[in-house]
Amino acid sequence: MVVLLSNDDGIHAPGLKALAESLQELGELFIVAPDRERSATGHGITVHRPLRLETVTLPGVNARAWAVDGTPADCVKLAVEDLLPRPPELVVAGINQGPNLGTDVLYSGTVSAAIEGIINGFPSLAISLTSYGSYDFTTAAEVARKVVTLVMKNGLPPGTLLNINVPPAKPRGMRITRLGNRRYINIFHKRTDPRGRIYYWMAGEPLDLEENGEDTDVQAIKQNFISITPIQLDLTDHHALQILRQQWGEIPFNI
Amino acid sequence: MVVLLSNDDGIHAPGLKALAESLQELGELFIVAPDRERSATGHGITVHRPLRLETVTLPGVNARAWAVDGTPADCVKLAVEDLLPRPPELVVAGINQGPNLGTDVLYSGTVSAAIEGIINGFPSLAISLTSYGSYDFTTAAEVARKVVTLVMKNGLPPGTLLNINVPPAKPRGMRITRLGNRRYINIFHKRTDPRGRIYYWMAGEPLDLEENGEDTDVQAIKQNFISITPIQLDLTDHHALQILRQQWGEIPFNI
Repeated sequence: MVVLLSNDDGIHAPGLKALAESLQELGELFIVAPDRERSATGHGITVHRPLRLETVTLPGVNARAWAVDGTPADCVKLAVEDLLPRPPELVVAGINQGPNLGTDVLYSGTVSAAIEGIINGFPSLAISLTSYGSYDFTTAAEVARKVVTLVMKNGLPPGTLLNINVPPAKPRGMRITRLGNRRYINIFHKRTDPRGRIYYWMAGEPLDLEENGEDTDVQAIKQNFISITPIQLDLTDHHALQILRQQWGEIPFNI
Repeated sequence: MVVLLSNDDGIHAPGLKALAESLQELGELFIVAPDRERSATGHGITVHRPLRLETVTLPGVNARAWAVDGTPADCVKLAVEDLLPRPPELVVAGINQGPNLGTDVLYSGTVSAAIEGIINGFPSLAISLTSYGSYDFTTAAEVARKVVTLVMKNGLPPGTLLNINVPPAKPRGMRITRLGNRRYINIFHKRTDPRGRIYYWMAGEPLDLEENGEDTDVQAIKQNFISITPIQLDLTDHHALQILRQQWGEIPFNI
């Protein structure tokens, strides 16, 4: 089985190494990842300059590996189109340092790599350790191996990727969740440079808008459960579509 | 009414000017846009370096305007948190040069600005001219004014943004559509530089996977209709969620 790994923390991130080590018995691994940290890149791609790559050897990891000077989505596209000997049976992105919960997934480079996997028709997973402080990826790596084994056995519904978040402490179990509704507040720190000019640092604190959303990913992590959220890519608002067809259907647009 | 405009083609793009000119009678306009082209940035945000901005005067446009050295999502965040005198009643992104159809919306900086509007709780629109060759934004600007007038009158379902695509020729009418299933093929041009090193240009041709999807945005544009697609941000795959709860619900994750 050909498994493609990527991430957004960069090719030398410890989370990627832990992921590769935990999956290398399960299949033939290929790693194509950004040459540096590219978190919060969303689903960006690089179209205004050429992309370069180089082969990389990761100590203790039995996999061919390339570092690309682009985004996670670029990496998956390049892997599929030019680098892998045949199409991957699975794409796994991670292990991300920090959570990817609720609305976070829209900004996440890690999830974006898995989204690119799904767009290209391959079952895909994104996995994140929900702590910025802990560098112990042991539990998250075990979860990755367990989920990959389950996906190899049962498959996934077509067009679905799994977004997995693992708490840093020993988890109480696993929940299949929906995305919570999370927004960031106090986003900018406004400062003045030594020349008197203003600049802004983006930061922000998460504000979870559904405190009692028992079935959300946010709540699962708060309660120390592993969260597994199935995600799909059709952003169409099918409910609003019906409403608008009724409201707007007869409005002339003879412009 | 306070209306925030942004885009991903940059503050000096002709599509943004055309949009502002067509909307300036309808409300008090504020423009916060990238200082250069930032297309295909997806929903990226800038967290690893500070953001700078400067005020800009756009000839013929009655609006306060700022150019930001960041992404479209950065621009909307900054506008809402620090630049606007009060929260906007509406966020409008565009007019984009080129289509944003089907899977394109995941990569689109223009749509990303409208997504950021929705995340912050404001009704939002993204509007694109589906031609790369035509610089005549007259029709698209008229469509923008018409849709804004309708949204001011009827509102939008909460959490819904409208993704509008306008064909370059005189449209036959308007359709409320769903996102089509579009993928890109032959994505990379692989070249060798004068020093013998390989580099890649991303390009690609769209491959529409549903030729007969009569109700899709892709098909509406092919048939020369204006396409209006309601979009929401919950990527949870609710169908797969039920399946996985049944299949995986009893699997122990005592890791």
